[in-house]
Amino acid sequence: MYQYEDDTFVLHNDLYQINMAESYWNDGIHERWSVFDLYFRNMPFDSGYAVFNGLKRVIDFIENFHFSSSDIEYLKSIGYKDDFLSYLKTLKFTGNIRSMQEGELCFGNEPLIRVEAPLIQAQLIETMLLNIVNFHTLITTKASRIRHVAPQDQLMEFGTRRAQETDAALWGARAAYIGGFDSTSNVRAGKLFGIPVSGTHAHALVQTYGDEYIAFKKYAERHKDCVFLVDTFHTLKSGVPTAIKVAKELGDKINFVGIRLDSGDIAYLSKEARKMLDEAGFTDTKIIASNDLDEQTIMSLKSQGAKVNSWGIGTKLITGYDQPALGAVYKLVAVQDSSGEYVDRIKLSNNAEKVTTPGKKNVYRIINKKTNKAEGDYITLEHEDPDAESPLKLFHPVHTYKMKFIKSFTAKNLHHDIFKEGKLVYELPSEKEAQAYLDDNLLHLWEENKRHLNPQDYPVDLSTACWENKHKRIFEVAEHVKEMEEENE
Amino acid sequence: MYQYEDDTFVLHNDLYQINMAESYWNDGIHERWSVFDLYFRNMPFDSGYAVFNGLKRVIDFIENFHFSSSDIEYLKSIGYKDDFLSYLKTLKFTGNIRSMQEGELCFGNEPLIRVEAPLIQAQLIETMLLNIVNFHTLITTKASRIRHVAPQDQLMEFGTRRAQETDAALWGARAAYIGGFDSTSNVRAGKLFGIPVSGTHAHALVQTYGDEYIAFKKYAERHKDCVFLVDTFHTLKSGVPTAIKVAKELGDKINFVGIRLDSGDIAYLSKEARKMLDEAGFTDTKIIASNDLDEQTIMSLKSQGAKVNSWGIGTKLITGYDQPALGAVYKLVAVQDSSGEYVDRIKLSNNAEKVTTPGKKNVYRIINKKTNKAEGDYITLEHEDPDAESPLKLFHPVHTYKMKFIKSFTAKNLHHDIFKEGKLVYELPSEKEAQAYLDDNLLHLWEENKRHLNPQDYPVDLSTACWENKHKRIFEVAEHVKEMEEENE
Repeated sequence: MYQYEDDTFVLHNDLYQINMAESYWNDGIHERWSVFDLYFRNMPFDSGYAVFNGLKRVIDFIENFHFSSSDIEYLKSIGYKDDFLSYLKTLKFTGNIRSMQEGELCFGNEPLIRVEAPLIQAQLIETMLLNIVNFHTLITTKASRIRHVAPQDQLMEFGTRRAQETDAALWGARAAYIGGFDSTSNVRAGKLFGIPVSGTHAHALVQTYGDEYIAFKKYAERHKDCVFLVDTFHTLKSGVPTAIKVAKELGDKINFVGIRLDSGDIAYLSKEARKMLDEAGFTDTKIIASNDLDEQTIMSLKSQGAKVNSWGIGTKLITGYDQPALGAVYKLVAVQDSSGEYVDRIKLSNNAEKVTTPGKKNVYRIINKKTNKAEGDYITLEHEDPDAESPLKLFHPVHTYKMKFIKSFTAKNLHHDIFKEGKLVYELPSEKEAQAYLDDNLLHLWEENKRHLNPQDYPVDLSTACWENKHKRIFEVAEHVKEMEEENE
Repeated sequence: MYQYEDDTFVLHNDLYQINMAESYWNDGIHERWSVFDLYFRNMPFDSGYAVFNGLKRVIDFIENFHFSSSDIEYLKSIGYKDDFLSYLKTLKFTGNIRSMQEGELCFGNEPLIRVEAPLIQAQLIETMLLNIVNFHTLITTKASRIRHVAPQDQLMEFGTRRAQETDAALWGARAAYIGGFDSTSNVRAGKLFGIPVSGTHAHALVQTYGDEYIAFKKYAERHKDCVFLVDTFHTLKSGVPTAIKVAKELGDKINFVGIRLDSGDIAYLSKEARKMLDEAGFTDTKIIASNDLDEQTIMSLKSQGAKVNSWGIGTKLITGYDQPALGAVYKLVAVQDSSGEYVDRIKLSNNAEKVTTPGKKNVYRIINKKTNKAEGDYITLEHEDPDAESPLKLFHPVHTYKMKFIKSFTAKNLHHDIFKEGKLVYELPSEKEAQAYLDDNLLHLWEENKRHLNPQDYPVDLSTACWENKHKRIFEVAEHVKEMEEENE
C-alpha cells in the first residue's frame, strides 16, 4: 500500500526513542539490561475492572522487529550518522517479555507487560507496545461492560465505518469478540481472525427499490436467513407490517430471523413491533436494535421494558466513545549498572499518581479458597513468594490503614513467559479461547467489582518489601533533589 | 503481517454490503448506475467549521479495489455461491468520484464526496470510504481548532502511543499536519508522507542515569539541538537549574532549544522557568508543554499568562477525545430505473435530521466579492448554475424565513473530478500544499464562524429547486406510507 515494499513498524515510533537509543549507543550503555513495566493508572470508563488484550499483535511486532533498508535510508536522510545506523541495521529483539494473557482481568497500577531487555531494544519497542495495548485493552473492556448488562442477548459489533481508521476497525472487531461479543460486521476480521460475521441489509436496498415490499422479497430470493430493516419510511405503519406480510407470503422459504430498528424511540417501537410480530405468529422472530448504543442506553432501554433481543453496537464501542484512550504508560523500573547489577529506578512527579513503583516485579491474583473470589492483586519484588506467607497481609499502598489478612488462598502469577532471549516461547490461545477465559475469569470477581456504575474499588496492593523499596527510593531521590537545589543556589 | 499475502481492503466491509450486492446481482440490477452522497450531519466538537481530509487514502483504496483469491475463498467458506463469486472475481471500480480536496472547509449536510457508479460498486466501497473520511476529517478539524488558538506557536503531534491502533497514529499524524501542525513524533509518518518529525528525550533517559546532570550531558554529546525534559524529579528545584547548568557549561557546543514540562501546574511552572531561563541569559530558549493538552487547556493556559512557546499534543488530538467519531454517512440519492433514467431516492426517519436530500447534486461556496468572505454553501441539483442567478437567494432549509440575497459573488464548485469511469484523473496536492490551502481557505471565513466556543452557524442552504425536489419526494413517500398503512389494515 505504501511506496516502500520493505516498510516495517520499527519506525512507527516516537522520534525521541531513536534519539535516546542513539545516546545510549554513543555512551556504550545500550546493551545494559533494563526492566520496563507497561501499565495504566486509572480504570477506563470508571469501570470496576478492565480486560487485557493486544498480545497477538505485540507478538507479531516483536517477531518482525528489524530496521529495513528503507527505514535506515530514511533515518539517514533526516541526519542520523552511518556509525549508529550500521548498528541498527542488524538489531533484533533478544530480550524477555512476560505478559498477561488475552482476556485477563486487569487493574490500575499493575504491570500488564514486563519487558526485560537490552536498554536500546526495550526503548525502541515502547511506542508500538503502548499503541497496541492501549487500544486493544480499551475496546475489550468496553465490550465486556456491554456484555455485562446484556448477558443473554446477541451482541453484534457494527462499528467499522466509525472506527478510527482501518486497524482500529479490524483489531477493534477482534477486541469486541474477546470481550464477549458474538460477531462482527467486518468481513475482513472474519477472514483474518476466524470470528463470526453478521449483517443483512441497509436502507440503501429499500431505497433502491423505492418500496419495502419489493426490496424485502428481492432480498429473500437469494438469502434464506432474513433480518429486515424496517425504518426506511415509517417503522410501524410501513416497515413492520410489510416485513410480516413478506414473511407470511414466503412461509418456509425463509427463516424470518428478525427485524432491525435503527432510529426513533427504540423502547416504544420495540414494544409495538413485538406485539405486531406476536399477533402474526412470529413469536420467535427477534428484534434487533442499533443506533448509538452502549451499556448505558442498553440498561436504560431494558429498564423501560424494551423488547430487544439483539443489539448492533457501533460507534460507542469501537471508539470507546466515553473515554477514547486508556492512557497506559511504559516506565523504566530497573537498569544494570556498570558492574551488571540491576539498580532500581523511580520517577517522581508533581502529579502524585505519576510516581512509579521501582524494581523488577511480579503480580499475583489472590483468590480466597473459601469463596473462590479474588481478594485483590498483589505486586511483589521478583524474589518474593506469596505462597510462603500465611496469613498474607494486603494493605492499601496509599491509605495503609486499609488492611486485611488472608489465610487460605491461591496466588496466581498473572504473567506468562512470551519471549525468552528473543525467542517466542508462548502459544497464543485462539480468540474463542480468550473469550472463554475472560468469561471464566469474571466468575472470580465479586458482583460489586463488576457493576457498571460506581463499582467497588478492586485492591491492587504492594507487598511490604515492594512498598518499602518504593519509599526508600522516594527518599533517596528527595535527598538528591535537595543536594541539587543546594548546589544550584 | 497477516497470513494472506493477497489480503485486500475489499473485505474491510460490513457484511450487509456483500449481501446487498448479491441481491442486486441476483436481480440483475447491479450494474444500474446510482448516486451516493457522503456527508456528516452535525459539526464535530460543536465547531464552526470542519476540514475535509482522507482523499489520499480513498484514492489508494479505489485504485486497488478488487477481490483477491483469498477474499473469494473466504466468502465461499461462509456460504456465498460460485455464480456470484465468479462475478466478484473480475469486479473493478468503473465509476465516477467527485470530492472536495484535502484541506477544504466543510460543514454539516453537504456532500463531501459524490460517488456515481454501478450500484454494486457504489455499495461495496461505502464502508471503507466512511471509515477513512470519518477519521481523517475529524482529526484535521481538531488540529485546525488547536492551531486557531495558538497561531504563532510551534505545534507538535505527539499522540502515537494513545492512538487507536497503528493506522490511526500514522494517518492521524498526517491529518494533524494538514490541519496546521508543524510536525509529528511519528517517524514512520515522516518517512511515508515527508512531513517533519520532532522529539528529543523522555524520562527514561534521566532515570537510566539516575541523575539529570549526567543524562543531559550524555544526550548533548551526540545531539546538538537539545530540549531537556525537566520534570523527572523536581521541575524547579532540580530539572530547570540542571538544564541551565549544562547549557552554560556546553556553551556553543549545543543549541539549547528548550525545556519541556510534562506534569504539574504548567501555568505556574512555565512562568517560573521562564524567569530562571531569562536570568541565566537564555531568553531564546523555548518552553515546551505537553500533558493532555487541547484547544481548551491551551486557551486557559494562555489566559493565565503561561510562558509556553511550543505545545506537544497527544491523546486529545489523535483520538478527537471530546468527540471521537465524526458520524459521516453515505446515502443513496438517485438510481437508474429499468429505462436507464435516474430516479431520485429519499430516506425518511423518525429522527428528522436523518431525512436525506435526494438527487444528483453539486455544492458551491458563495464568496461575497465585496468582503471576500464566504456567505454560505449552496447545494444545487446537477443542472443548475448559480452564476446565472443574480441576486442569488440563500435561505435556511428548515427555518425558511431566514433568507438573504447576494448580488456580487463568485460560486466555487467544491467538488473535483477524482475518478472518471474508473480512471484516476486527479493529481493529489502534497500534504504541505493541503496545509497551505486550508490556511488560505480560513481567510475567507468570518471570525464568528471560527471562534472555538459557540461559533455562529455557517449557512448550508439548498437551492429552491433542490429544496422543492426534496419536499416533493417527502410527500410522495408519505403518500406511499399511507397506502401501505391502508393496505396492511
